[in-house]
Amino acid sequence: MPKQIKKLAVLTSGGDSPGMNAAIRSVVRACAYHDIECYGVYRGYEGLMEGDFEPLNARSVKGIINKGGTILKSARSKEFRTKEGRQKAYDKLIEAQIGGLVAIGGDGTFTGAMIFNQEFDFPVMGIPGTIDNDIVGTSHTLGFDTALNTVVDAIDKIRDTASSHNRLFFIEVMGRDVGHIALNVGIAGGAEEILIPEEDLGLDRLVDSLNRSRTSGKSSSIVVVAEGDKIGKNIFQLKEYVDENMEGYDVRVSVLGHMQRGGAPSCFDRVLASRMGVKAVESLLANKTNYMVGLLNGKMELTPLENAIKGKTKINLELLRVSDIMST
Amino acid sequence: MPKQIKKLAVLTSGGDSPGMNAAIRSVVRACAYHDIECYGVYRGYEGLMEGDFEPLNARSVKGIINKGGTILKSARSKEFRTKEGRQKAYDKLIEAQIGGLVAIGGDGTFTGAMIFNQEFDFPVMGIPGTIDNDIVGTSHTLGFDTALNTVVDAIDKIRDTASSHNRLFFIEVMGRDVGHIALNVGIAGGAEEILIPEEDLGLDRLVDSLNRSRTSGKSSSIVVVAEGDKIGKNIFQLKEYVDENMEGYDVRVSVLGHMQRGGAPSCFDRVLASRMGVKAVESLLANKTNYMVGLLNGKMELTPLENAIKGKTKINLELLRVSDIMST
Amino acid sequence: MPKQIKKLAVLTSGGDSPGMNAAIRSVVRACAYHDIECYGVYRGYEGLMEGDFEPLNARSVKGIINKGGTILKSARSKEFRTKEGRQKAYDKLIEAQIGGLVAIGGDGTFTGAMIFNQEFDFPVMGIPGTIDNDIVGTSHTLGFDTALNTVVDAIDKIRDTASSHNRLFFIEVMGRDVGHIALNVGIAGGAEEILIPEEDLGLDRLVDSLNRSRTSGKSSSIVVVAEGDKIGKNIFQLKEYVDENMEGYDVRVSVLGHMQRGGAPSCFDRVLASRMGVKAVESLLANKTNYMVGLLNGKMELTPLENAIKGKTKINLELLRVSDIMST
Amino acid sequence: MPKQIKKLAVLTSGGDSPGMNAAIRSVVRACAYHDIECYGVYRGYEGLMEGDFEPLNARSVKGIINKGGTILKSARSKEFRTKEGRQKAYDKLIEAQIGGLVAIGGDGTFTGAMIFNQEFDFPVMGIPGTIDNDIVGTSHTLGFDTALNTVVDAIDKIRDTASSHNRLFFIEVMGRDVGHIALNVGIAGGAEEILIPEEDLGLDRLVDSLNRSRTSGKSSSIVVVAEGDKIGKNIFQLKEYVDENMEGYDVRVSVLGHMQRGGAPSCFDRVLASRMGVKAVESLLANKTNYMVGLLNGKMELTPLENAIKGKTKINLELLRVSDIMST
Repeated sequence: MPKQIKKLAVLTSGGDSPGMNAAIRSVVRACAYHDIECYGVYRGYEGLMEGDFEPLNARSVKGIINKGGTILKSARSKEFRTKEGRQKAYDKLIEAQIGGLVAIGGDGTFTGAMIFNQEFDFPVMGIPGTIDNDIVGTSHTLGFDTALNTVVDAIDKIRDTASSHNRLFFIEVMGRDVGHIALNVGIAGGAEEILIPEEDLGLDRLVDSLNRSRTSGKSSSIVVVAEGDKIGKNIFQLKEYVDENMEGYDVRVSVLGHMQRGGAPSCFDRVLASRMGVKAVESLLANKTNYMVGLLNGKMELTPLENAIKGKTKINLELLRVSDIMST
Repeated sequence: MPKQIKKLAVLTSGGDSPGMNAAIRSVVRACAYHDIECYGVYRGYEGLMEGDFEPLNARSVKGIINKGGTILKSARSKEFRTKEGRQKAYDKLIEAQIGGLVAIGGDGTFTGAMIFNQEFDFPVMGIPGTIDNDIVGTSHTLGFDTALNTVVDAIDKIRDTASSHNRLFFIEVMGRDVGHIALNVGIAGGAEEILIPEEDLGLDRLVDSLNRSRTSGKSSSIVVVAEGDKIGKNIFQLKEYVDENMEGYDVRVSVLGHMQRGGAPSCFDRVLASRMGVKAVESLLANKTNYMVGLLNGKMELTPLENAIKGKTKINLELLRVSDIMST
Repeated sequence: MPKQIKKLAVLTSGGDSPGMNAAIRSVVRACAYHDIECYGVYRGYEGLMEGDFEPLNARSVKGIINKGGTILKSARSKEFRTKEGRQKAYDKLIEAQIGGLVAIGGDGTFTGAMIFNQEFDFPVMGIPGTIDNDIVGTSHTLGFDTALNTVVDAIDKIRDTASSHNRLFFIEVMGRDVGHIALNVGIAGGAEEILIPEEDLGLDRLVDSLNRSRTSGKSSSIVVVAEGDKIGKNIFQLKEYVDENMEGYDVRVSVLGHMQRGGAPSCFDRVLASRMGVKAVESLLANKTNYMVGLLNGKMELTPLENAIKGKTKINLELLRVSDIMST
Repeated sequence: MPKQIKKLAVLTSGGDSPGMNAAIRSVVRACAYHDIECYGVYRGYEGLMEGDFEPLNARSVKGIINKGGTILKSARSKEFRTKEGRQKAYDKLIEAQIGGLVAIGGDGTFTGAMIFNQEFDFPVMGIPGTIDNDIVGTSHTLGFDTALNTVVDAIDKIRDTASSHNRLFFIEVMGRDVGHIALNVGIAGGAEEILIPEEDLGLDRLVDSLNRSRTSGKSSSIVVVAEGDKIGKNIFQLKEYVDENMEGYDVRVSVLGHMQRGGAPSCFDRVLASRMGVKAVESLLANKTNYMVGLLNGKMELTPLENAIKGKTKINLELLRVSDIMST
């Protein structure tokens, strides 16, 4: 029979995303609701190995639901990838009589949690916090919705100047391996083309498409490019190619960069974070372990961490088609 | 065998919502993509009866995806509720050789469309555009997500001043019959209590809860109240009751009002609108009629208009519980 | 010869305004820069009388420059209006060896500071923090610029729905005695009429003007009303009058309320706050007392508190004229 | 005796800036108010030479006060720099019986207008529209205030992620020759250092300063860099230098780019644009010519175009000092 958990710990790890603070708050308050003590661990697994954690109560997390970033700070830890590192972390948790860990982050975070669980049979629960939406087992990762709005707002601004000058803009958005951000903001930003890692359009077809677009009467164009797009080695090479192979266009590049990770979370992300925190805590208290909490068909569901890590999210083909039709 | 549709019309009716323009744009561009002529009808059914419509092409809807309101304007029509009114509308459509109608709006709009379809066997397709999210057959109505963000942003601002002054704020949000907006923004805004039409908390329990909240160390509080909440006849009476029955609180009221309907649509609403417009047009072209386009489990699905109108959306009980736990 | 100040205190009092935190941060950091200890006083004069203050260092005010409200909280104090109350406050200051006080607030705050200075010869310096911009001796009070942007954003949203429905909206904005907010947002929001306390248009002329506006082809209209406007006892009576005396308009009312006080301060308010904090501290250190820091012709200037209080700001007649021309 | 002007033209030229549309609207409505016909010229001087203009009335400019970019579009014209080009433009204006020209733009635009005036004695009036605030004769150019808020909002977002990861961020903002944007957003964004073209800090001193900053307990830092800063050839070289010469910092770069030019104008810019448009039209009607309209000490004033072009704005030394004190 599993022993009753009396104390939980929560940490954020890997790249930060909007909604992480709301999730921390939710974990802490769900613990308070169930009379469980909750420890906040600083700087992810780094802090865990150092014992850099402290108790948080319901009031400690006041006023953070609308803050970007993470009050627990985040880090990537090399040492936790070693057996020795994980042993250190385990010792610190046992010492503090902590009986379960909620890890908020992406697939690197989950891999660490899963191995940790396998080695020490220590209860872990993952909450998917990343703007990339590249985790299987949830329709939305924490921060994805906020990042979409941040990017669309930036594209709206760039369009103002693009259409005042009849310019062609290449706008790079985050998404090294997946095009979820690019595809959504491309549609929402009214982009003429969307270049994503999952689909290799080819440079010639891009130039063809832009030429058609201009012929059909569009005087300015926006092309959204995911970081990891395969067409050009990078967006500046893309610009060079178009400069050389298209006439009459004034081509500009904008790399949106790290502002995509910040900002007050959207209502959706705050609600999602609140739901996920409660689900994570209550799942651990129900002696579930090694799962990720996710949103599937509108409901909170658990997915084994292993599946969340191994799986690869698929691009929504319907969206690709909608995007094509919209750039008619 | 149904005849081939060559021309479609699109209108917006009832209360406007963010994303309506994005939906109009999508309907128009999906028509262009399928070489169908598209007419924009002004002022909803009023304009339809008057023949106040004109052809729109892909360029006509340029630059509107990010605009609130509706370029086709909206209205509520008494005359269209009469047989004579609908006959007028039918005559105008036949005269212009229009073979199908996309109606964007809420349940009043859909009721009109359904009766019109039944009487004249005229192909109609509904797109749910309302901030209230009170339509069965779609997890999200157009504008709901944007309105949530607008309201949460306002609550964040009010909280600044509430917590600077140790005040209790009653904030009224839209939702005459349903508490979807209130419930979501209440969680996202960190409200201590959420009063919704679906649940009668009772004034005494409200005062108890606020007292507990203060005892637990909270110096300021926010209570989100849906327009249609049953507790008090209105929010000002609520304030009076609390003024009389609680000591030491400086109680203020804020009615957010019509700003909730406006603003640039969120990325989510723009993408949803784009998907719905395509689905509506292609469904009509596939000779489907009398349906509403909706988002169910992440996919575009059709629901008979009759079901969309008759049904009553249910409040998400999980959210109610999360809200309780968060105000620990 | 005045003694050298070693410790300063800072407080916020009266209604809060965006930029107060930025001003607190600036006062604290200017003290650190000059090796002066700085005390933060909680809840304005209330906390001062109770000795509710603590030392703040440069790191204490980290991350607050972009936060609305005031981390020191604010209050209105009746007791400080009595000689006994002020004596208490003086005793607490002397006990803590504090040699000067920076008071951030409006005319009520300054009146308190001035009387306190006169009675105890205690060095005081005022920073004008109020969204109303009703203080003589500065072209801009802290928070005014932010509030203008907040209100204009709300008006933009309301206009979306107003123009979708051909409606007339009365929008009430803050400004009990002065029309600065109303005048600026009225111009920026494209209002057809602006009703301010300084100018009595008269109800008949308002109706005339709205009728002319409609005749000239405007289908929707926005009228911005300052809280303190003299025309109607309040905005709802205004609506009733227009309902009765104009035909065919669907009249709606929106009272923007307390959200006008909150939100992240604009760049302008943050820079202004930073300048004012430095100026206030350095003026006290230079043995100036009983002044308010202000922005005049782009420069930091001192105005005797007495003048700041007694004076009445004047409405910019050029703006009134521009407003008339714009609603052509 | 100068002849009475019956028709005016307005154009936007050079880089676009938020508020240009509000200025166009104001010029058009001021003309309507004075019963003058107003022509909108497309694509700046290019369109002027081609006769690409059309009459605009008060309704034509409805709903544009809050739109970024310019409905008249903008361009840079090589041909207008030739005598032949200007002759073409003159012929088109005379042909259309237009008696004066309002040119909205920066110093390039004004240089063109001034030469045109000198050659053909044609009445011209400039309105300073550029986000850089680098024009003598006005405390604020149109778009400067909006750009400041856009940049500060982006910095706030980047700070979220910077402080979650203990990172050092170099953020490049616009300002090729002047540091006005950098200096203001640096203060408002709480930057540790601000690198501007007007001041050569030197790379060693930068590294020293960052080291001091870290020693004093700051775990993350933001350095704002104006495009034209002299320290490094560009911001990526700056990063390389710091990577090589400082240990333990994770250095990132963000180039904000063209989004700084777009977006809905702030209240300030809308009001300023409205005032400038009226002043420009009424000055031309009063037979003034070859001036720029500007805001000086809160009032609308005229400055000879020649002075506006030749002069070089100075960095506000008080702001530099405040910035130093704030990064204490």
